[in-house]
Amino acid sequence: MKKGNRYGTHRVLEPKGVLPQPADKLDNNMDVVYDNEILIDVQTLNIDSASFTDIEARANGDKAKIAEIMMEIVEKQGKHRNPWTGSGGMLLGTVEKIGEALEGKIDLKVGDKIATLVSLSLTPLRIDKIKDIRPDIDQVDIDGKAILFESGIYAKIPTDMPETLALSALDVAGAPAQTAKLVKPGDTVLIIGAGGKSGMLCAYEARKRAGVTGKVIGMCHSQRSTDRLKKLGFCDYVFSGDATQPVAVLEEIEKLTNGEMADITINNVNIPDTEMTSILCTKDDGVVYFFSMATSFTKAALGAEGVGSDVTMLVGNGYTKGHAEITLELLRESKELREIFTELYA
Amino acid sequence: MKKGNRYGTHRVLEPKGVLPQPADKLDNNMDVVYDNEILIDVQTLNIDSASFTDIEARANGDKAKIAEIMMEIVEKQGKHRNPWTGSGGMLLGTVEKIGEALEGKIDLKVGDKIATLVSLSLTPLRIDKIKDIRPDIDQVDIDGKAILFESGIYAKIPTDMPETLALSALDVAGAPAQTAKLVKPGDTVLIIGAGGKSGMLCAYEARKRAGVTGKVIGMCHSQRSTDRLKKLGFCDYVFSGDATQPVAVLEEIEKLTNGEMADITINNVNIPDTEMTSILCTKDDGVVYFFSMATSFTKAALGAEGVGSDVTMLVGNGYTKGHAEITLELLRESKELREIFTELYA
Repeated sequence: MKKGNRYGTHRVLEPKGVLPQPADKLDNNMDVVYDNEILIDVQTLNIDSASFTDIEARANGDKAKIAEIMMEIVEKQGKHRNPWTGSGGMLLGTVEKIGEALEGKIDLKVGDKIATLVSLSLTPLRIDKIKDIRPDIDQVDIDGKAILFESGIYAKIPTDMPETLALSALDVAGAPAQTAKLVKPGDTVLIIGAGGKSGMLCAYEARKRAGVTGKVIGMCHSQRSTDRLKKLGFCDYVFSGDATQPVAVLEEIEKLTNGEMADITINNVNIPDTEMTSILCTKDDGVVYFFSMATSFTKAALGAEGVGSDVTMLVGNGYTKGHAEITLELLRESKELREIFTELYA
Repeated sequence: MKKGNRYGTHRVLEPKGVLPQPADKLDNNMDVVYDNEILIDVQTLNIDSASFTDIEARANGDKAKIAEIMMEIVEKQGKHRNPWTGSGGMLLGTVEKIGEALEGKIDLKVGDKIATLVSLSLTPLRIDKIKDIRPDIDQVDIDGKAILFESGIYAKIPTDMPETLALSALDVAGAPAQTAKLVKPGDTVLIIGAGGKSGMLCAYEARKRAGVTGKVIGMCHSQRSTDRLKKLGFCDYVFSGDATQPVAVLEEIEKLTNGEMADITINNVNIPDTEMTSILCTKDDGVVYFFSMATSFTKAALGAEGVGSDVTMLVGNGYTKGHAEITLELLRESKELREIFTELYA
C-alpha cells in the first residue's frame, strides 16, 4: 500500500502543495487506497444547509437539475465543495476498507456504519448515481465512494436511534458542544436563529448550562419556528425578528435584559448581514460565537470596531473534542428534542 | 440639546432604520449638536489607502480633480465613504464642543487634539475647503467639521512624539493590545507576518508578556523584513517563509518547538489563504488570533474542522479597551520600535 499524508495532501491534484480543502481538484480514484485512508461506501450525503439552499435556488427547486449541479461539482473537483458558498456537508456510509497503517489503531472495523464529521469540501468523493433527493432535510442518497483521511473525524452511528435522526444532529454537532464549553451558570444567552436545527440544540444546552440563575433568549424568524421553540420550553423568552436589522433587534434585547445585553450570543442564522446584530446585542466584555457559515470576517471585525465594542468574537469551529458524543446524548436526555428532531429531520 | 442615539442612528437620513455605516446619506448639519455627540474641528483627513488610490486614479493624479471628487462624495453622502471601494479612513482634529450628556464622563475637553479611530465611512463630515493634498501619505488637510458619536472611539494625540508617528501606530492599535490580553508567561507565540507594522508591535508585546520562560517565533516573508526583525531582537527565532504554504511552515514550526506547536498564533498577513497555516501551527487547545482582513471565515471554520483541530479562533477586533494608550506606550518603552517606526512610517 502507498504511504499517505496525515492531512491527505497525497490526494491533491491542483494546485500542488496545498491541503485538500482549498484544492481545486482532488484525486477521487478509489481503486487505490493509501495506507492511512479509510474507504467508505457512501449511502447518504448531508449537504451543508447554506450550500443546499444555494443549489436548490440555482435549480429553481427542480430535483433533476439539483442532481445535475451536484454531479458537475464532484466531476470537476473530485469532492462536493459548493463553488459559490465554499461549504460542504457530511456523509453517511459503511467502512469498506481500512489502510494497514491504521488497522488496530482506531475503533473501526470493516462493516461499521459511520458518519464522517469532516466537511465534504475536503473529502474525496465519487458519485456513481444520485438515487433520491430530500430537499426538506438537505439529504441526498447516492451510490458512491469516499475517502476519510487519517486526520479526519467521524462518529459511529448509534444503534439506539434511527440513522437519519443521528445524522441530522451530528451535522451540527459543533454548535451545542461549543455552547457547552462557553455558557456558565447565570449567563444571559442570546441565540439568533434559535428555531433551526443547531439553534434548538444550542438552546437546550444553553438552558442546561445557564441554569436557574441564567436567562436564555431565543430569536427566530418565521412565526412557525417561533411557536415551535416556545412550545419546547428551553428559553425564557422567544421572539420573532429579522437578524439583518440591528437597530430593531437591539431595542428588543435592551428591553428583555433591562439594557444589560447578552453575555454570550450564538449566531446560527444562515443568511448574510447578521454580524452587527450579534455584536450590538452582546455586552462589551461578552462573547459572540459565529456558527453561521454566512458570516463575513471583515463585517464582524470592522463592525465591532465601528461601534467601539470590545466583544470577543469566535469563529465557529465545527469540531471540538467529544462533539459527536455530546450531541447524540442530548437526543437521549431530552424527549422534546428527540421528538421534534424526529418530526422535522429524521 | 436634542437627545442622540448611542450609535448615531439619529443622523441617518436614508434609508431610515439602518446604522450610519451602511447608510446612503447622513445629516451633516453641524449647527445642531446632539447631547451625546462630540463636534470636531477637522484638520486632516487620513484617507484609507484603497480609497485614496482609487480617487487619485479617477482624477488622473490631478489635485484639483481629487478635491472635486472628495467634495462631491461628502456633499452627496454627508460622510467620506468612497462609493467605489466602500472604505473610509480616519481624521485628525480639535474638540470644539462636547454634548452635555457626555460632559465629565469622558477624558476629553474642548481644545484637545484627537484622532478618531472609527471609520470615515460612518462619520458625519462637512468640508468647507480643501487646503492641501499629500498623495504620498494619503492625507488631505481641510477646513471642516465632523461628529463623533457616543460609541465612537478616539485617541488623544500625545505631545511627546510627532503626529505622523502617533498616527501610524494608532492605525493598527488593536493588534498589540489584543496580544497583551492573550499572551501569558511561558507561552510559545508564533507571529505570522511579524516583520510588518502590526507584526513588529505584536512581537514586542508578545516578548514582554511571554517572558523568559516563553518563546516568540517571528515569521516574515521578504529577506529584508526578516533581517529587520532579527535585528530588533524581540524574537527567539525569526525565519522567512510563505504563509500560504501550510505544509512547509508546519514542518518549520514542528522543528522549532520540538513538535509541540504554538500556544498562540497571531496572524497579521494581509494576503488570502493563510488560515490553514495558522491552524496547523497551533496546539489543539491553543488560540489563533486572526488580525488579517484577508481572513476568510469559512476557510478558517472548515479548515479547523477538516483537520480535527480543537483550536480556538478569534476574529481580530480592531478595538479593545485602552488600545490607543497601550500602543502609543510601546513607542515610548522601546527605543528600537520608535526608531524603526520613525524610519519606515513617520
